[in-house]
Amino acid sequence: MSDPIFEHRFRVALHDTDAAGVLFFAHLLRHAHDAYEAWMAQLGFPLDAMLRDGGLRLPLVHAEADYRRPLRHGDAVTVRLGVAGVGGSAFTVAYRFLDAQGELAASARTVHVGVDANGHRTLPDALRRAVQPPQTRLA
Amino acid sequence: MSDPIFEHRFRVALHDTDAAGVLFFAHLLRHAHDAYEAWMAQLGFPLDAMLRDGGLRLPLVHAEADYRRPLRHGDAVTVRLGVAGVGGSAFTVAYRFLDAQGELAASARTVHVGVDANGHRTLPDALRRAVQPPQTRLA
Amino acid sequence: MSDPIFEHRFRVALHDTDAAGVLFFAHLLRHAHDAYEAWMAQLGFPLDAMLRDGGLRLPLVHAEADYRRPLRHGDAVTVRLGVAGVGGSAFTVAYRFLDAQGELAASARTVHVGVDANGHRTLPDALRRAVQPPQTRLA
Amino acid sequence: MSDPIFEHRFRVALHDTDAAGVLFFAHLLRHAHDAYEAWMAQLGFPLDAMLRDGGLRLPLVHAEADYRRPLRHGDAVTVRLGVAGVGGSAFTVAYRFLDAQGELAASARTVHVGVDANGHRTLPDALRRAVQPPQTRLA
Repeated sequence: MSDPIFEHRFRVALHDTDAAGVLFFAHLLRHAHDAYEAWMAQLGFPLDAMLRDGGLRLPLVHAEADYRRPLRHGDAVTVRLGVAGVGGSAFTVAYRFLDAQGELAASARTVHVGVDANGHRTLPDALRRAVQPPQTRLA
Repeated sequence: MSDPIFEHRFRVALHDTDAAGVLFFAHLLRHAHDAYEAWMAQLGFPLDAMLRDGGLRLPLVHAEADYRRPLRHGDAVTVRLGVAGVGGSAFTVAYRFLDAQGELAASARTVHVGVDANGHRTLPDALRRAVQPPQTRLA
Repeated sequence: MSDPIFEHRFRVALHDTDAAGVLFFAHLLRHAHDAYEAWMAQLGFPLDAMLRDGGLRLPLVHAEADYRRPLRHGDAVTVRLGVAGVGGSAFTVAYRFLDAQGELAASARTVHVGVDANGHRTLPDALRRAVQPPQTRLA
Repeated sequence: MSDPIFEHRFRVALHDTDAAGVLFFAHLLRHAHDAYEAWMAQLGFPLDAMLRDGGLRLPLVHAEADYRRPLRHGDAVTVRLGVAGVGGSAFTVAYRFLDAQGELAASARTVHVGVDANGHRTLPDALRRAVQPPQTRLA
């Protein structure tokens, strides 16, 4: 994974868990997307405004997650987001989910493809530069 | 509640439950809406087509639910849907959630208001007649 | 509603919205529960620890919501939580959802009943005092 | 992918979609899990009973999905489930999501590991045979 460039925090809510007492796996990807939305807004590409404008869309074409340690109701989780790759009209975002002890509980990736209003695949330069900053790194 | 006029069935999935081992309360309303969608489609007013057409919308202005018995993972649930009232540009749908033994586990109501493409409240006659059938009753 | 005694903030995420472009109604109650969880933790009654201890449970027996203005993707929402009533073994929590302009977008209530490990209804004094602080009264 | 051995159908509900008008990606995995639950129940390994018994658990350690065509509100979807591999104490379930025209809209995989009540990894023979029926093989 790339160096993390953005952090997002959440607490595992009751509705995140299931009768097995742990975070239901698909909800991890919901939280990943929350981190992605917050990051994109910080980059100057808020998804809500982009959707309303009807210009560039960024459909998600792939998602994956690995689950190492259960996340339980009430757990404080830190999501460390980084860019794992940019190529063609697509970019890959990587997520590491750390528990309160800093242990890796899960990781995930999502792949997003730029599509313009005419349905053509494209990743505008401004967005390409934004998702792949040359120097900005978390310590 | 009115006489039930439509039945919808579901099984409580793992993701419906929470760490307390029972259906998370807000998910009951998700299932109520599934029943409502299926009923509206049967009436000839499929919500998906209505949304795409951009004509009449039916925003939900009120929802409520009472929880009597816990619904658990794997439980087979029958939703009995009826119309509790039609008035002005609104109608109220009532739901009874029965467990596999036929016991009432929960009940709910949703209130929907018709709004046309210009933002005016209205309930077209065809829909008014559809949601309030004079004779159609489940045995 | 009582005077608000707790605030919880969230931003309407993409997954909160539906094809109608607004927050799906049942998700409002998920956010209400997030506010309730955060408030209970602040009161010293974290729901996660209570569930793990297997002592007092607080099943939700009623929920309701009124929707006045649509909440859209990206909207910053403030939830103002207050206690609308405490009686017998139950208490009622009220929620006001304000948009970024401070306008009331929705309101909700949830009713919780205390149940001890033996299944008896009870609201321990410490919790009763906590949910009904001396200076916060119904209007 | 293996030959499909189980089919599960659903209709894309309003709450499955987001403001972009299509199924929110993480919900695809919720539907995959519904298919998995229904299949396991048919095999004689209902997850709800297994969870209640507190014996064998089958935590999900990996999930992935590829999205080819958008699924929209109201779309009738068929999930074709197959077993993509069984090895050690784990098995991989593959899912193909077909739209009403039979076109592949998405695919997914989930990997499940057997864990006994003592926390040891194991896949009991009965379950191993069940998930890998003699006549269903990888191509």
